[in-house]
Formats: sequence, C-alpha cells, structure tokens
Amino acid sequence: MKASVFQKELQRKKIDAALFFSFGLQPDPNVMYFSGYDGSGVLVVPKKGDLFIIVPRMEYEKRIGVKKYVAENLFDKLRGLLGKNVRRIGVDYNKIQVSLLSRLKKELKASFKDISKVVAEQRLVKGKEEIEKIKKACSVTDAVFAKLVKNFRFRTEMDVLCFIGKEIKKNGCDLAFEPIIASGKNSSLPHYKTSDKKLGKGFCVIDFGARYKGYCSDMSRTLYLGKPSRKDIVLYEKLRRIQEKIIEMARTRVKCSELDLFARKWIGNKYFIHGLGHGIGVEVHEMPKINNKSKERLKEGVVFTIEPGMYVKNKFGIRIEDTVLMTKEKAVSLTKSTKKLIIKENFIN
Amino acid sequence: MKASVFQKELQRKKIDAALFFSFGLQPDPNVMYFSGYDGSGVLVVPKKGDLFIIVPRMEYEKRIGVKKYVAENLFDKLRGLLGKNVRRIGVDYNKIQVSLLSRLKKELKASFKDISKVVAEQRLVKGKEEIEKIKKACSVTDAVFAKLVKNFRFRTEMDVLCFIGKEIKKNGCDLAFEPIIASGKNSSLPHYKTSDKKLGKGFCVIDFGARYKGYCSDMSRTLYLGKPSRKDIVLYEKLRRIQEKIIEMARTRVKCSELDLFARKWIGNKYFIHGLGHGIGVEVHEMPKINNKSKERLKEGVVFTIEPGMYVKNKFGIRIEDTVLMTKEKAVSLTKSTKKLIIKENFIN
Repeated sequence: MKASVFQKELQRKKIDAALFFSFGLQPDPNVMYFSGYDGSGVLVVPKKGDLFIIVPRMEYEKRIGVKKYVAENLFDKLRGLLGKNVRRIGVDYNKIQVSLLSRLKKELKASFKDISKVVAEQRLVKGKEEIEKIKKACSVTDAVFAKLVKNFRFRTEMDVLCFIGKEIKKNGCDLAFEPIIASGKNSSLPHYKTSDKKLGKGFCVIDFGARYKGYCSDMSRTLYLGKPSRKDIVLYEKLRRIQEKIIEMARTRVKCSELDLFARKWIGNKYFIHGLGHGIGVEVHEMPKINNKSKERLKEGVVFTIEPGMYVKNKFGIRIEDTVLMTKEKAVSLTKSTKKLIIKENFIN
Repeated sequence: MKASVFQKELQRKKIDAALFFSFGLQPDPNVMYFSGYDGSGVLVVPKKGDLFIIVPRMEYEKRIGVKKYVAENLFDKLRGLLGKNVRRIGVDYNKIQVSLLSRLKKELKASFKDISKVVAEQRLVKGKEEIEKIKKACSVTDAVFAKLVKNFRFRTEMDVLCFIGKEIKKNGCDLAFEPIIASGKNSSLPHYKTSDKKLGKGFCVIDFGARYKGYCSDMSRTLYLGKPSRKDIVLYEKLRRIQEKIIEMARTRVKCSELDLFARKWIGNKYFIHGLGHGIGVEVHEMPKINNKSKERLKEGVVFTIEPGMYVKNKFGIRIEDTVLMTKEKAVSLTKSTKKLIIKENFIN
C-alpha cells in the first residue's frame, strides 16, 4: 500500500525509479519505511511493479519482505538491474550525501530528482497499519515502565537502563534509542548520557521508547527519588498540567508553533530549553517539528510527541512526554503511563 | 595540533573556514575529531585562530573544549559570526546531505568546496594523543572481556550485553557501538541483533568496543558454550592461525586488499562473507577499508581492525578481531585478550 501510493507519485513526476541507500551506520529510514528492512543495502522502488533490494553478502541470510539480490559490486548490479530504460531517478536529498549523489551521477547514466518532499509528505500521515505498530510500541513502553516502577530497586542509572533494555526485548521490541536516565542534578541536561554512577536524590528523568517492526514510541516520565519538598511537588504539578493542557489544545489545523509557544509562556522561556516535540514513526525524530518556529499545522493521522520540560541549570530538570496521535477530533495519547508524581522515598536497596 | 595542521591545509587551498554539522541523530564525527564535542551543533574551523561551535540552547550546559555560542537561529548566528570576509567555505561532501548544502548556499553568500579528502587523509594517520586514547579504549575492552569470561554466568544474550555495557561505563568509557552477542546458530549472522533469548549451545561471537574521549576500540572473540567437537576446535584453530598470520603479514606499504585476499583464500570465499577489516578512530568504521577491492596501502600510524570470520549459513559463525596499530616495523595488536578457544561447558547457571 505504502509503495503503491508512492509509485503513483513517481509516475506523476515522470520518475522511473527511486533509490534509497542504507550503509552501515548511516541507514536511510525510508528503506525501513518501504520494505521493513533495517540492514545495509540499497532499496529500489520502480515506478511500477515490485520493489527490490540489493544487499552485501554479509546480509545474505536476512529475511526481507521484498525481493533480494546479493551483490559484491553494488554499482554494477544496480546498472544491470535498472537497465537502460531508467533515465530519471529519484533520491531523497535530505538523506543522501553530496559525494554519494556525485558517484551515482557518474555510475548511472541518468538524471536525478529530489523526492524528499514526496517522501516526507507521505510519511507525515500514518496509515492504519503504521498506527497499529506505533500503538504496540507504546503499549510495550507502558508495560515496561509499570514494571520498572514496581521493581524500583536500582543502584545506578545504568541499572535502570539495562532493566529497560531487557524488558523491551522480552516484549518483542528493540530500544528505539539509547534511554536517558538522568538523576539528581543530571536531570537538568535534556540529552544527558546515562552513567554508571549511583542514582542521585531528587528528580529523575526517564526517557525511552520501543521500536516494533520499525515503528517507534517515545515517552518521558519524571520520578522523585527521596522526599520531595512542597515546592518540588508544585513545580511538577505545574508542568503536568501544562502538558495535559497542550494535549487538549491539539486539534487538526492548529499550528504546531502555537502549542510550543503556549508551553514556553507558562513554563518560561528561560526554563524551557528545547522544542515541544517532534513527529515520530520509523524515525524517532521526524516531521513535523513542533517548536516555536514550526510552520506546519496538525493533521489527522500525524503521530508526534508532546514533551514540555523545565530545567534549572546545575540543579534539576523535569520532563513529561507522551506519544500522541492526531485524530479527526482530538489528540489521543498512545502512551498511557500514569503522570502522577511517583515518589521513591527509599530508593536505594 | 590537529586543528592547526588542518588550518594550514585550508590556507593552502585558499579556504576561509570549514563547517561541520552535527544534528541530533546524524552527528558528524569530524566535530568530535576537532573539538571533542559529541552533541548537536555546528563546528567552525577558521583558516586562522580559534575554533568555535554553535549549539542549540538545550546543550548550553555542556562543557566543550572550544568557544561555544548558543543560538536560537543557527543560520543567522553563523552569518553573523563568519562575517563578510568568509567567501570560500569547506564542507565534507562525504558527510553533508545534498539539501543541507543547498540551504547553506542560500543562507550564506559564499562558495563551497569539498574538503572530504583533506579531512580523511589527516584522520587516516593517528597522532600520539589519538593512539593513547585508542590504547585506553582497547585496554578497557580487554579488562571487560577478562571479567566477562571470569564471571560467565549469563542466561541470555542480553545479560551479556548489559554486563558489557555496565563494565565499560564503570571503566570511564562508553560503548563504541551496540555489542553483538550471537550464540548458537545466530552466530552465522555477522550483524546479528542481540536478543533476549537464552544463550544457545555452540560458538558464541562477542563483538564489542569501548569509546574513550571519542576514540573507539573494536574486538571480537568467539567462545564455545557446551562441549566442542574435535571439528569445532580444528575450525576455530584454523581461523585463529589465519588471523594471527595476517597480523604478521601487515607491513607498511602492503596493500590492504592483499591481506583480505589471503584470508579469503584460506577460509574460502564461500565462508568469509564480509571484508577483513576497517580503519577505526573517532568512527568505528572509517578509512581505510580493508577488503578485496581496497586500493590503499598500509601506513605507519594507521589503526585498523583485522577480523576474519567463517560462517556456515543457519549453523554457526566464528570471528576473531583485534584493533591493531601499524608501526614502522609491524602491526601491533592494541587489544590483547587471549585468542585461545574459551570453552564454557556448563554455561547455564
């Protein structure tokens, strides 16, 4: 279905085939989107007929949902398989490196067209099957979080990370990204790298997601380790109300920037040091951006995060994040874990 | 030092400044190479004077070795900081996406030159400080592996992965990449994704590395879980001798392809389904490639892996890999873990 919609667009644009390149540590998420394959290889989407993929020998054993060719020399194989009738080739300029495009121009006698917009627009609105996969990733995230809270006997941030990693695998998913476990004053860093230090007292941001059949979830909850002061609770509850209010405000046709600006107004720009959210699908971060500069409006079928945060330099941070789906009527949280402040007074076992 | 060598090259090429872009999940390793910084931001290397970096507000708290500017609007800030005298700008065409380069051309009134070769050549030969960092990453890898072997009471592949992750953090490093723990017939997949299944009997490939101050190590060892047959031992010993022989054969001026072809000849092309190795530094995979098509010759100061493998589809795989340094006289293994076949007869606790 996803491929046939895209193929019609290729035909409309008189493009003979589209190529997507996943090399080693720089995979193109479009390969996952169209084929479900997450290894190294080059995906070919011809304007008509079946998709196919060219993979290095190392991947010969992997099962892929589309026809697979194993090649030692990629460009020779590509030339042979495309044949002489493929003269206009589409590539995603947002993903392809300048040198790879130059190489392609030399290796294949064809002209190249940017199809980044076509791909981005198609990927922006999620279909039924895609939503089901994201829902599954979200429900696994919720289950893992519930178990984590119930079994909160961790010594270090890494212990929490490992628990999450194992539980996500047990539930048939992969980690969508390296979880952030930021305790004590580490929580003031939104992109903190989890350490092997002992969990510190105070707010503890736990930000993680699962990947199910290529599709991601992303959720953050902030626990309190130790005994919170009245002020801590007030701050947390303020952020929680803002986050919930924004989910309520999200309607189709609403500007993404409006949501961000609402959060910024109530939290204070000084304390809210990142964007409000981001689209999510086969990439953890994809379109639309949800920040104060976003030009997009919300649409039915878009899946995105709402993650306001409140950070005080060198002191603490709080972040509450859900993955939500824009329906015709309203935004529905697909991550459903409790947002009540979870307090672990005696957290050290 | 690294920057000043590069700056001289910029001057020679009449380039006023070089820009390197690290955005979210697509970081440019050159940013790490020149500044030691691993977050989001844009690194500017002017032809003379101090390097600086422009980061989003979210990263305001991070300590970076070079001057840091925080900007809400990257391109405005970049235009302001570069000023009118910067007319020729270098970017790495191997790293930058086509659409980002187009955007730069619109935003900055300057001409753009490819500096991928300059950067690659400089990064190919490691300096003394770089080698010290890689050595440290390798010695941590050895220490973690020794502890893993000593404490081999794991139930699942994920248990092994978590042990490695925690121990590497305890030793002040990060994982260089997601470790591969492939037991039983999973070992026949070179890029197998570690599962939460019970460890299977037979060969178990453990492939991991540490990252110390940006610099990586990469090592694989293959254990045997259960009781190996005579044939298993013979196969393992054959691969071990081949791997050790190749390290001996590596001399400056030797062609990389020659080493790969030697391995291929003795293992059999059918069973050796990936390249022999790869350069390593701030990237796990960097220049030189060491495969049957490589054009490069070995040079003093190059650090790379030698990792022949032997794979039988759906049955098993064996891989032995070291990170080695090319010195004037010979290749020296920086990872020094034993290559004797480690047998865990009663591996299930």
